[in-house]
Amino acid sequence: MSSGGIFVIFLLACGAAAATGVIFKPGTWYEALKKPAWTPAKWVFPVVWTTLYILMAWAASRIAVLPENGVAMAFFAAQLALNTLWTPVFFGAHRIGLGLVVLVTLVVVVALTVRAFFAIDWIAGFVMLPYLAWLGVAAALNFWIWRHNGRAVS
Amino acid sequence: MSSGGIFVIFLLACGAAAATGVIFKPGTWYEALKKPAWTPAKWVFPVVWTTLYILMAWAASRIAVLPENGVAMAFFAAQLALNTLWTPVFFGAHRIGLGLVVLVTLVVVVALTVRAFFAIDWIAGFVMLPYLAWLGVAAALNFWIWRHNGRAVS
Repeated sequence: MSSGGIFVIFLLACGAAAATGVIFKPGTWYEALKKPAWTPAKWVFPVVWTTLYILMAWAASRIAVLPENGVAMAFFAAQLALNTLWTPVFFGAHRIGLGLVVLVTLVVVVALTVRAFFAIDWIAGFVMLPYLAWLGVAAALNFWIWRHNGRAVS
Repeated sequence: MSSGGIFVIFLLACGAAAATGVIFKPGTWYEALKKPAWTPAKWVFPVVWTTLYILMAWAASRIAVLPENGVAMAFFAAQLALNTLWTPVFFGAHRIGLGLVVLVTLVVVVALTVRAFFAIDWIAGFVMLPYLAWLGVAAALNFWIWRHNGRAVS
């Protein structure tokens, strides 16, 4: 299969993660939470996430056709599963503390994914950097919300 | 990294999917649903799923170290994300019809993953077959529950 075909499969994979954002909406529960002044506007999230999913599918499809990609592909699968997990934990189950645990784990696994990508193809690694940066913002936001809304670990 | 190290990363990846089973429990909502006589006993599910996650991590780690694994790795990432999505949709959001849509998509993507695995390494393909078979049972169960509990698409 061509690199383009593999890109489409990775887009489908990211689509499964992206679907969580459609199925588990913020809603009134999230509206009522205390949030920091620097919380991005609501419209920013779907725009940023759509962009990031396309970029990560592209990066992964570059890595997928290169030799010695085992570690990189394993980390990519792990980060995508963790990414799919966060939204239902936070917005579905309303478990802010557990969401923070998932998100911090995700940041670490994405950092390892980026390192593994850079080791094979610097363009693929570079393309993943906005995702890692955004996760930093998301983790800071999740942490702030946890800290100012009861600090429950659940 | 060794094949063993890659196996551990894939175990982590499957752990993210498996975590949904711990976080989104069946509970009283599921207990109250009409279910077929052939529904497996409750203890069967965690035992089967733990086994299947270990098998799929093993299969993926075999594929990850082989050349020309791009399509197989892309399908594996897609099926794992869909697998992670199903539990919160069904047990978290209680959306039986949407769960069925996710599960049928998952069956198709796992079938494509198995085919791609067989094309590279027949042992890896073979190791994935119990997973595909179990998904058939799970899809039949999801379909039965959908058909006998109101047939809502949501």
